[in-house]
Amino acid sequence: MADTESVEEQEVTPWIVRGSEKGINYSKLIDQFGSQPIDPPLLARIERVIKQKPHRFLRRGVFFSHRDMELVLNNYETQKPFYLYTGRGPSSEAMHLGHLVPFIFTKYLQDVFDVPLVVQMTDDEKFLWKDLTLEETNRLAYENAKDIIACGFDIKKTFIFSDLDYMAQRREFYENILKVRKLVTFNQVKGIFGLNESDSTGKIAFPAVQAVPSFSNTFPDIFGKRKDIFCLIPCAIDQDPYFRMTRDVAPRLGYLKPALLHSTFFNALQGPKSKMSASDPNSAIYLTDSPEVIKSKVTKYAYSGGQDTVEEHRAKGGDTSVDVSYQYLTFFMEDDDRLAEIKEAYEKGEMLTGELKKILIEVLQNLVAEHQRRRAEVTDEMVKEFMTPRKLNFSC
Amino acid sequence: MADTESVEEQEVTPWIVRGSEKGINYSKLIDQFGSQPIDPPLLARIERVIKQKPHRFLRRGVFFSHRDMELVLNNYETQKPFYLYTGRGPSSEAMHLGHLVPFIFTKYLQDVFDVPLVVQMTDDEKFLWKDLTLEETNRLAYENAKDIIACGFDIKKTFIFSDLDYMAQRREFYENILKVRKLVTFNQVKGIFGLNESDSTGKIAFPAVQAVPSFSNTFPDIFGKRKDIFCLIPCAIDQDPYFRMTRDVAPRLGYLKPALLHSTFFNALQGPKSKMSASDPNSAIYLTDSPEVIKSKVTKYAYSGGQDTVEEHRAKGGDTSVDVSYQYLTFFMEDDDRLAEIKEAYEKGEMLTGELKKILIEVLQNLVAEHQRRRAEVTDEMVKEFMTPRKLNFSC
Repeated sequence: MADTESVEEQEVTPWIVRGSEKGINYSKLIDQFGSQPIDPPLLARIERVIKQKPHRFLRRGVFFSHRDMELVLNNYETQKPFYLYTGRGPSSEAMHLGHLVPFIFTKYLQDVFDVPLVVQMTDDEKFLWKDLTLEETNRLAYENAKDIIACGFDIKKTFIFSDLDYMAQRREFYENILKVRKLVTFNQVKGIFGLNESDSTGKIAFPAVQAVPSFSNTFPDIFGKRKDIFCLIPCAIDQDPYFRMTRDVAPRLGYLKPALLHSTFFNALQGPKSKMSASDPNSAIYLTDSPEVIKSKVTKYAYSGGQDTVEEHRAKGGDTSVDVSYQYLTFFMEDDDRLAEIKEAYEKGEMLTGELKKILIEVLQNLVAEHQRRRAEVTDEMVKEFMTPRKLNFSC
Repeated sequence: MADTESVEEQEVTPWIVRGSEKGINYSKLIDQFGSQPIDPPLLARIERVIKQKPHRFLRRGVFFSHRDMELVLNNYETQKPFYLYTGRGPSSEAMHLGHLVPFIFTKYLQDVFDVPLVVQMTDDEKFLWKDLTLEETNRLAYENAKDIIACGFDIKKTFIFSDLDYMAQRREFYENILKVRKLVTFNQVKGIFGLNESDSTGKIAFPAVQAVPSFSNTFPDIFGKRKDIFCLIPCAIDQDPYFRMTRDVAPRLGYLKPALLHSTFFNALQGPKSKMSASDPNSAIYLTDSPEVIKSKVTKYAYSGGQDTVEEHRAKGGDTSVDVSYQYLTFFMEDDDRLAEIKEAYEKGEMLTGELKKILIEVLQNLVAEHQRRRAEVTDEMVKEFMTPRKLNFSC
């Protein structure tokens, strides 16, 4: 990332992600948002505490920023309970690889820390922002839940909920929403989210809905009346505004500030200047894509950092810093040594773009086929159980 | 009412009622709000349709303004079903005479038209506007419900609900709220209610909550999925902004605009320049006042339109247009002839202020004692039944 670009060039909110020509400058974003980098000392401490090598997303800077991760580790070390909270806005049936990133990581955190997880499906948000009916966004919440469940979450420790459903199931949800809304003014929402006077009161009221799953007493089935169970939120960094607001109001409500782990964005096949979009199916690998479609998309569309001719490539080597195939491998290839070999070979020109793409195609075909296999095993009964407010395998 | 005062001198919103020196100019308010006066032709039509003399609140201009009351009468004449909706903000245990006015009138409408009624207790609103906890406003909703039930509503045709409760009981409530919020911008709420940028997002989000009981499909237990059951809202005119907003969005949602009947405000004992306030118990007659307290309050505090001395009063007579005792009688004395006699005698100076007050004291002592007797008969089981979402004695 170039350090010369100005902060003003990029804008990141839950609804707008606008970087410079070179994409998002993530270290500038850490300054803008006031979060902390996940630096080598923190990675070393994580490794010591969990007694294993941290997840590749941590080792490789996919999750690059945090708030209060030290407190999470302190809690874990002193055996104080905490829980995980993440979510998805169900605006489309078609989930792509990028959507999987927070869930793959959250599943890892659940395994490593052995903690409960709540997953919020913001069907109300998608109704407010998109031209979709409530029936449709609620249906999509259930469809998307299948893809989330297919990531392997522990059914005894995971509660997935649609906002539309849960609002009519547990009064603690609306009660906490009201408490947050009472403390947050229009001016604050304007400042934090860039909403304005012409925006709907639905949009202005929504941030409190995404805030309150950070507070343990929003889930009486899991935590009873306890309001002091600490919360860790893994999410893409565009969701941070919600939790800056949440952390601001938490102490005034006698609640704990949630901790956060922030990920970078997952680029479109065409590279960081492009946006993955449901209207352009070739911009992303979807979880429903066949092996042939994956092969064709990567071959045709994955932005290459290679040179124009084989001769030139052999001479100058490829640029992994812009090569989407290489970037995707950093997300999905587990083997550090193999990835380092590929990087070296590609940058030296020993490996051609076609060869690199072949490796990625195989990795993605396996990943997506495996996902599809697990998703096919997700029954309606399982979805129903995951999405029923209930006691989890957790004691505090 | 003086016609010379300017519109700008008065401000009426659900939270601010500011008149001129002479009080509120209600005909100016009809112009400001764009409602219709309840005029002699409409009163005559009401009398024809219901085949009885209209309620004293109609005859005497307590309910003085309306929207679409003709449509309500059309519905009734053609035996199309409709329902009533009114409400209360439970901010205090102590309800006073003025709070009874809409409920006395609503009970009359339920009897005359034989229709179902929903009563909204806005415990969420009072939490947002007052320094009260959710537990307290919810408790007050149940306490106030007892006073409302004591007005004599038909338990088979009446559903009383707390917003905090109902939000967690029927998803149709939040769904309709979202539909309204999606259509109403901050600028509109600012224009209609006088809310501003420093107000909490809770306040900005609330108007949709008071709007949606106007739509029949908010109550699936009563109306099923029907969204075309017409709604009539009797309320004090300061609540009209909510329903101007509601009527604005209704057609865009495929819903019917609710009809309204608006009442004037009930003055403090000290007259229209004063405000009835829980912090000054002498400003109002409370439903818990003993006969002695009623006697003492009226005697000491009821603003008199009489002259300074008996001689002067005998000579000039009293001014019923400012005399609070006389005004209260117009609300609560049923007998038109007797009221006319009193007016004449008082204005001629034949009746002294003390004599007028004595009549009022007796009327109020009977009214309040009768209310207390009926309230004592309201059991927790009755409150529970009134406040349980359920099928009512209604078919459509």
